[in-house]
Amino acid sequence: MDFASFLTSLATSFILFVVLMLLFTWLSRKPGNKEVYYPNRILRGLDPWEGGSGRTRNPFAWIREALSSSEQDVIAMSGVDTAVYFVFLSTVLGILVLSGVVLLPVLLPVAATDNFMKSSNDTSKGTFNDLDKLSMGHIEEKSPRSWAFLIATYWVSFVAYYLLWKAYNHVSDLRAAALMSPEVRPEQFTILVRDIPPPPEGQTRKEQVDSYFKAIYPDTYYRSMVVTNNKKVNKIWEDLEGYKKKLAHAEAVYAESKKTGKPEGTKPTNKTGFLGLLGKKVDSIEYYNQKINESVSKLEAEQKVTLGEKQQASALVFFTSRVAAASAAQSLHARLVDTWTVMDAPEARQLIWPNLPKNFYERQIRQILVYVIVALTIFFYMIPIGLVSAVTTLANLKKILPFIKPIVNILAIKTVLEAYLPQIALIIFLALLPKFLLFLSKEEGIPSESHAQRAASGKYFYFSVLNVFIGFTVGGTLFDSFKDIEENPNSVVDILATSLPANATFFLTFVALKFFVGYGLELSRLVPLIIYHLKRKYLCKTEDELKAAWTPGDLGLATRALKVYVPSYESYGKMWPHIHSRLVAALVLFQVTMFGYFGIKKFYYTPLIIPLPILSLIFAFICSKKFYRFFQATALEVACRELKETPNMERVFRSYIPPSLNAEKVDEDQFEDAASQVSRSQSFV
Amino acid sequence: MDFASFLTSLATSFILFVVLMLLFTWLSRKPGNKEVYYPNRILRGLDPWEGGSGRTRNPFAWIREALSSSEQDVIAMSGVDTAVYFVFLSTVLGILVLSGVVLLPVLLPVAATDNFMKSSNDTSKGTFNDLDKLSMGHIEEKSPRSWAFLIATYWVSFVAYYLLWKAYNHVSDLRAAALMSPEVRPEQFTILVRDIPPPPEGQTRKEQVDSYFKAIYPDTYYRSMVVTNNKKVNKIWEDLEGYKKKLAHAEAVYAESKKTGKPEGTKPTNKTGFLGLLGKKVDSIEYYNQKINESVSKLEAEQKVTLGEKQQASALVFFTSRVAAASAAQSLHARLVDTWTVMDAPEARQLIWPNLPKNFYERQIRQILVYVIVALTIFFYMIPIGLVSAVTTLANLKKILPFIKPIVNILAIKTVLEAYLPQIALIIFLALLPKFLLFLSKEEGIPSESHAQRAASGKYFYFSVLNVFIGFTVGGTLFDSFKDIEENPNSVVDILATSLPANATFFLTFVALKFFVGYGLELSRLVPLIIYHLKRKYLCKTEDELKAAWTPGDLGLATRALKVYVPSYESYGKMWPHIHSRLVAALVLFQVTMFGYFGIKKFYYTPLIIPLPILSLIFAFICSKKFYRFFQATALEVACRELKETPNMERVFRSYIPPSLNAEKVDEDQFEDAASQVSRSQSFV
Repeated sequence: MDFASFLTSLATSFILFVVLMLLFTWLSRKPGNKEVYYPNRILRGLDPWEGGSGRTRNPFAWIREALSSSEQDVIAMSGVDTAVYFVFLSTVLGILVLSGVVLLPVLLPVAATDNFMKSSNDTSKGTFNDLDKLSMGHIEEKSPRSWAFLIATYWVSFVAYYLLWKAYNHVSDLRAAALMSPEVRPEQFTILVRDIPPPPEGQTRKEQVDSYFKAIYPDTYYRSMVVTNNKKVNKIWEDLEGYKKKLAHAEAVYAESKKTGKPEGTKPTNKTGFLGLLGKKVDSIEYYNQKINESVSKLEAEQKVTLGEKQQASALVFFTSRVAAASAAQSLHARLVDTWTVMDAPEARQLIWPNLPKNFYERQIRQILVYVIVALTIFFYMIPIGLVSAVTTLANLKKILPFIKPIVNILAIKTVLEAYLPQIALIIFLALLPKFLLFLSKEEGIPSESHAQRAASGKYFYFSVLNVFIGFTVGGTLFDSFKDIEENPNSVVDILATSLPANATFFLTFVALKFFVGYGLELSRLVPLIIYHLKRKYLCKTEDELKAAWTPGDLGLATRALKVYVPSYESYGKMWPHIHSRLVAALVLFQVTMFGYFGIKKFYYTPLIIPLPILSLIFAFICSKKFYRFFQATALEVACRELKETPNMERVFRSYIPPSLNAEKVDEDQFEDAASQVSRSQSFV
Repeated sequence: MDFASFLTSLATSFILFVVLMLLFTWLSRKPGNKEVYYPNRILRGLDPWEGGSGRTRNPFAWIREALSSSEQDVIAMSGVDTAVYFVFLSTVLGILVLSGVVLLPVLLPVAATDNFMKSSNDTSKGTFNDLDKLSMGHIEEKSPRSWAFLIATYWVSFVAYYLLWKAYNHVSDLRAAALMSPEVRPEQFTILVRDIPPPPEGQTRKEQVDSYFKAIYPDTYYRSMVVTNNKKVNKIWEDLEGYKKKLAHAEAVYAESKKTGKPEGTKPTNKTGFLGLLGKKVDSIEYYNQKINESVSKLEAEQKVTLGEKQQASALVFFTSRVAAASAAQSLHARLVDTWTVMDAPEARQLIWPNLPKNFYERQIRQILVYVIVALTIFFYMIPIGLVSAVTTLANLKKILPFIKPIVNILAIKTVLEAYLPQIALIIFLALLPKFLLFLSKEEGIPSESHAQRAASGKYFYFSVLNVFIGFTVGGTLFDSFKDIEENPNSVVDILATSLPANATFFLTFVALKFFVGYGLELSRLVPLIIYHLKRKYLCKTEDELKAAWTPGDLGLATRALKVYVPSYESYGKMWPHIHSRLVAALVLFQVTMFGYFGIKKFYYTPLIIPLPILSLIFAFICSKKFYRFFQATALEVACRELKETPNMERVFRSYIPPSLNAEKVDEDQFEDAASQVSRSQSFV
């Protein structure tokens, strides 16, 4: 890619970005679209235009708002995790700016005025292009100008250390502030207990858990909730909720038909068979009412069975103080370490219930299996994809699906398809990969959604580093120069250093494209807007349905904007150590590459780089020793801060009851029974 | 070494052993020696001959007693650590017996009746000797008789798994029983806090610690003891104690002189200068009385200064309940993980006070340095020793120390010295090594003696495995066959397998020698007996001095006997996981060696051994997951057991005051002040 084509590609992307931004400006000013553009604010009952006047709102307003709004606002609005994401952005930006501002004015002239290319009289292999003239590739071998780049490497490293240290400290502060907040948060009073041994003869699981913890925590133990197998009760509850929604929909249709058609209206009907397409035609409102009544009684019966007989070897245990819970979550309870294992309870909405009762060794085995599968995926995913894309040529497709022939034969479409078909399998694979990794992480037996997401993003990071980066750009070079390696295995660093700068411009383009197009599309929220309007017009009849249509999804792995996304859970910044260690890993890779590159330039003082990777490792070690454990556990000095009010333990407890066991009509005697049992036994003690 | 010389050496050792045992029988029956043979019993106020009648006492009685006395007696007598040592002995014995009883009657005939040696018609290189005829080396290559040895390998492995599992479980029970005992043990109410940050302006260290822990544990916090720099006060106190002993000695000498000599007696005198050899002659009794008075006032002044001004960044914190202390010792207290680090407090007598205030990063750096030194020692210790032994030949010695000439010229002595001089440097090194490793472990900053000993024995284990075993026996073989390895690096296992069995007889002799002579000498306690009698006759004048003369040392690393040694500290079996993992390591080494040996015998089914080392690793993994953490921390279900009585917290607290700060005369206002401060602040809360 030469300089011209780079500029073209950059310009195209930028124009696309501007168009999308203009669309955003136009659309977001229309009051009818406000649910799509400010859902988070509306959900919190705030005025969507509060802060900036409606007229001056522009696509970059969110950036200004993000910059001007204090971190406290961000935390109040979207939680610690979003604030941590901003810390990440500002740290990376800080490293780029501090490096760039100081170095570019110095390094660009140093490189550009060197006469290496001229002196070699175009005898080079033509790997240098216009853009590369500005880079280190342009300076002469053994040139003393390398000193500038050596010092630059040190400068970038120390800027990175300084900013990363500040960021870690700051995130640690944020986490501490959130954990010591005077608000009552149920998860701070709760621990998750797993691997409970079989109860002794004549004791229920609940009695076993209660007596165990009451003995250890006579003063601070509140009560326990034994995890049950909710598969069946969940199914019934989901059916019930479905019927309720369909009933409301049918009633809305009926009411509308009264307004528009005959005054008595048309009663909506539906068929009872497969997907509403087959079977007897019935009156929808009557039918769903009947179904709801059936389901409610079934649900009540199943709830009794579930609570009584489907208790599993896991429980949530509630304490009356934050310190007691934080301390209990960190302490060894049982002599046999693989029983009564404890951990911080995640938020109720994060719990992956089916994973809770999984046995200690089952979890270990699952983890090993998942790691093996991930490793196989990372190293060999090209094989099935290659096979698939070899089979799905255009000619083959036409044979299998004859009806696409007329479309495919149009020249323009044919050209595009022929160009992109080979990559489609890869694109689909890369698009599905995060979901696949998340699925695998959940299969490990991880008890909370945010933890599973962290595990998945860790796997994705390894995939990216090993495959997209090394595999795509270096792999080719390595294969070409395999003979070199066989002759001299130490040359891997050299090869890395030769190939990486050459690929740097490619990456620059890739990042620019991804940022402008991807982020622009995301910001303008075009796709959800279209879907929302379509749904509103043709499908949604009730308020609830409307809300479901515009309520945004959770914080994706890569795509966020401050006012739009409702964070689906709060991990109090637990992802930071992972982000931090990946940034340090990138820094080490940069330093090693520079080492190799100076070597290629035959610069005598190249060994002066060697202290840097060592320094980076020491830096990582100190950071992990100083901060990491606080991100795994709650420090007691933080948990012991006073609360605004005495916690309403009943509410704390109820927040963890899954909705399928907590329907309005159902009497909660099961829970009450158990609770009163405890208080009775308490009075005996 | 052929069979005859092996028998000779075995016989010699055994005769020595019998002689020593006869001596033991004779000496231990004399009532005058009872302090040497039953010190532990006498210290506990038991009748030394209780249990066995004096007449039937014989050298093996302790074995019978050890076997007949229940484990509870052992624990009551010498603590959990001794009981754990017996579990170790019985486990190893169990593995040997269960392996031997089943296998020897089968394997010996299988090996002995094979005709490999005959068929090869003495063309072998002569590496096989009479003893080896009974071993696997004697069977033919590719012989189906190898099946017997393969099955034997499996049998030994499974016997080891079974017994090791049982032992781990049992030791875990012992530890739990000791930790949940209804006796009040001060260390169970105490935690050790290190890395306390600098106190805020206007607060003493003590106030800082008190306010910090009172906020977190309002109900269970008792009080704290800030660690002080006791170097100076210890020195004064030691001087004072020395003067007191000398005074008592002088008074005893004076009293004796009244009986034996003139009725008015001779007042003992001493010189005040260097080592009592120079300076003015003074009346000892007067002189020491004066010195004691001086020291007491100096001590009082220094104690005030120490308690007030020499407070360090470390403290012992006392809780009113065991559960609170056990839980506090495991919990993260501070947001910055490198401050307020906590751990279980060791027993008071185990504390290494100077190590307590050492900073977190100082400890890390010291640890790394120590590891480097140990690694260098293990790999290169032969170099200085080789140099030393090259220099200290007999001829050289005669030049340097001419006065030894007449002795050395006696032929018999000359022969012996010439034979042994080269090894003497090595012998001295090996004798000093444990002390050196213990010194290094203490330099790491480890806070307790028993922990330092565990660390030292770990280092010693690495040294043994890498050097004595691999270095001495395999190393030689490896050097000889270095060419083989260069040609085929995979042959290391083969070489291991060839050389190890050849060296097995050597080890057999070595172990026999060590057991019979070393253990016999130890048991008969000849050396201490001689020293004791010498001291009693010529030196000891007071009761205290006598007691010091016969009080035995602590449990050494390798030498114990049940009734004799007073365990110097109790770690509640914390060394077991280390013993366990070393036994498993030995098992894996055995399995790998057998794999290589079957390979050399060209046995087709050799790969059937491969699952065994894998199984061993899985076994080690499961054991560590199931049991290990309980040996690091106290499980709360254990700590929450009821106590016999309400703990006397004042006594718990006092047990940790070092003797130099706790002399009788000194008022303990410093401690009292602090305590009352706490209770006053308590009443405000």
